[in-house]
Amino acid sequence: MGHLTDHRWMGAALALAGRGIGRTAPNPNVGCILVRDGRVIGRGWTQPGGRPHAEAMALAEAGESACGATAYVTLEPCAHVSTRGPACTDLLIAAGVAHIVAAMGDPDPRTNGQGFDRARAAGIAVTTGICESEARAMIAGFLTRRAKERPFVTLKLATSLDGRIARPDGTSRWITGPQARAHTHLERSRHEAILVGRGTLQADSPRLDVRLPGLETRSPRRILLSRTSEPGWETISSPHAITHLAGVDRLMVEGGAQTASAFLAADLVDRLLLYRAPILIGEGRAALGDIGLAALADAHGRWRLRDSRMLGIDRMEVYERA
Amino acid sequence: MGHLTDHRWMGAALALAGRGIGRTAPNPNVGCILVRDGRVIGRGWTQPGGRPHAEAMALAEAGESACGATAYVTLEPCAHVSTRGPACTDLLIAAGVAHIVAAMGDPDPRTNGQGFDRARAAGIAVTTGICESEARAMIAGFLTRRAKERPFVTLKLATSLDGRIARPDGTSRWITGPQARAHTHLERSRHEAILVGRGTLQADSPRLDVRLPGLETRSPRRILLSRTSEPGWETISSPHAITHLAGVDRLMVEGGAQTASAFLAADLVDRLLLYRAPILIGEGRAALGDIGLAALADAHGRWRLRDSRMLGIDRMEVYERA
Repeated sequence: MGHLTDHRWMGAALALAGRGIGRTAPNPNVGCILVRDGRVIGRGWTQPGGRPHAEAMALAEAGESACGATAYVTLEPCAHVSTRGPACTDLLIAAGVAHIVAAMGDPDPRTNGQGFDRARAAGIAVTTGICESEARAMIAGFLTRRAKERPFVTLKLATSLDGRIARPDGTSRWITGPQARAHTHLERSRHEAILVGRGTLQADSPRLDVRLPGLETRSPRRILLSRTSEPGWETISSPHAITHLAGVDRLMVEGGAQTASAFLAADLVDRLLLYRAPILIGEGRAALGDIGLAALADAHGRWRLRDSRMLGIDRMEVYERA
Repeated sequence: MGHLTDHRWMGAALALAGRGIGRTAPNPNVGCILVRDGRVIGRGWTQPGGRPHAEAMALAEAGESACGATAYVTLEPCAHVSTRGPACTDLLIAAGVAHIVAAMGDPDPRTNGQGFDRARAAGIAVTTGICESEARAMIAGFLTRRAKERPFVTLKLATSLDGRIARPDGTSRWITGPQARAHTHLERSRHEAILVGRGTLQADSPRLDVRLPGLETRSPRRILLSRTSEPGWETISSPHAITHLAGVDRLMVEGGAQTASAFLAADLVDRLLLYRAPILIGEGRAALGDIGLAALADAHGRWRLRDSRMLGIDRMEVYERA
């Protein structure tokens, strides 16, 4: 099976991995596809809350036909038996899989190469590094939690061409159009939690839910950045307290300017999700306040454009930490 | 000769027309290409100050071979004899041109269809409307001066992702990178004049010249928006006074925020030229102040995206009045 074909199957496994994004913490959202004789015989992705794992789900679908198949997995199969289920490496060995193609190794010290080693020892061919950068991006939440002991943070801003998020009186409905707003709801569904500041709570009473057909049940947890508690909200008192948000590996910060600036000043933003409407507002509320910048030169080299597209007449841009 | 071929030749004529942009006021910047047997035998474009006209230049190059040729012109040939030169329609007739293909008619009442009529009466085939919208955009300066008795105004803004044009202390060097700054110089060369406000003059002492190899002689006139005079500068006291800028059909407004806002509030901006660097500044100077917006809904529907491209790591966008 050629190299290009491997990339194509891995692309399909990554698409499956995307189904679990923002729903699998503390586990990574993994995708798995089982292929035999050029046909897909099993598909799986990490289920909400982290179990079953992708491989277990794909093997269950394939049944006995998994014998001799190739397993495309977006992350190294786990090597450790947990109280919540068997090790996927053992399941793949037991099913008689002939070949494992993985995008990347699992940094979890309980696996960390042992999944590959044990599979090879059992006579399974192992190929790694296929679509690795895409796979890393797919589990940015898991990797950030592991490396930095905090969630991966997306900061969303919806502005006019001149960088305003509201008129002087706070009016902000609407700056962007329906396509951009729908995309924001889709992004919400890909995060375990959304955070706003008290100013936004008081001004907008935001529902912060997912209002997209078929995704109504995917509304994330709502977090308030505030020194005082608020009924119906989880509260944290400072940006750095996101480290204590158990079960949140992907956090979306939705505003307002003071909250956004606090996260940027604390260097806690990994991804900028920008929506920009083709309008000018002039006098109004700025997207950001003081973010602790000491000199203009320090602003450069921090952000790299990862995606850019039109949503109706608005432009969406995604920047990630360089 | 087919329709597609006509568009291709007209594209070449439009490219020639672009050479005169910002240099031909009060005349339109026109391009002309003479084609015989599928080969270009003459090329011309309106020369600085408006004379010679494109057709005269192309005919001079073609000489006797113009007999039987097709003339592609981005604007109807003029029908009026002036003290500055003969009517181009008469020149084309005298040269024995067989076919005139024009992008659009000339709204000048001294021509306004008479160029086409007189050519037809002389037995020349006339085709019109080829690439008309491109041709209209090419002479936006001429058309705006004629329709609104003022120059076509481009407002240039160079901002961070959050819409800042400077740090709180006024520092703005540099927000955008060398490619974007070079593009600004190219844009300057396409305008008869550049305007700044007194604040920008005092803060930056801008040279506002064209510092591009080969275009050093194309620096436009410098206009200051100010109630008091300033040595070395032409001065106007309000945005509406641009109507009195003789010889300026294309004006570029380069800042700062107060000047930009005054032009927007007066509804005198036809084109937004935006450069946007992948940086966040946070607290700082906003691109715009009060532009007279009464409600958010009023901001919509005013601007249409005409161009968007990357210049290095910065994005350039051009919006025009919808």
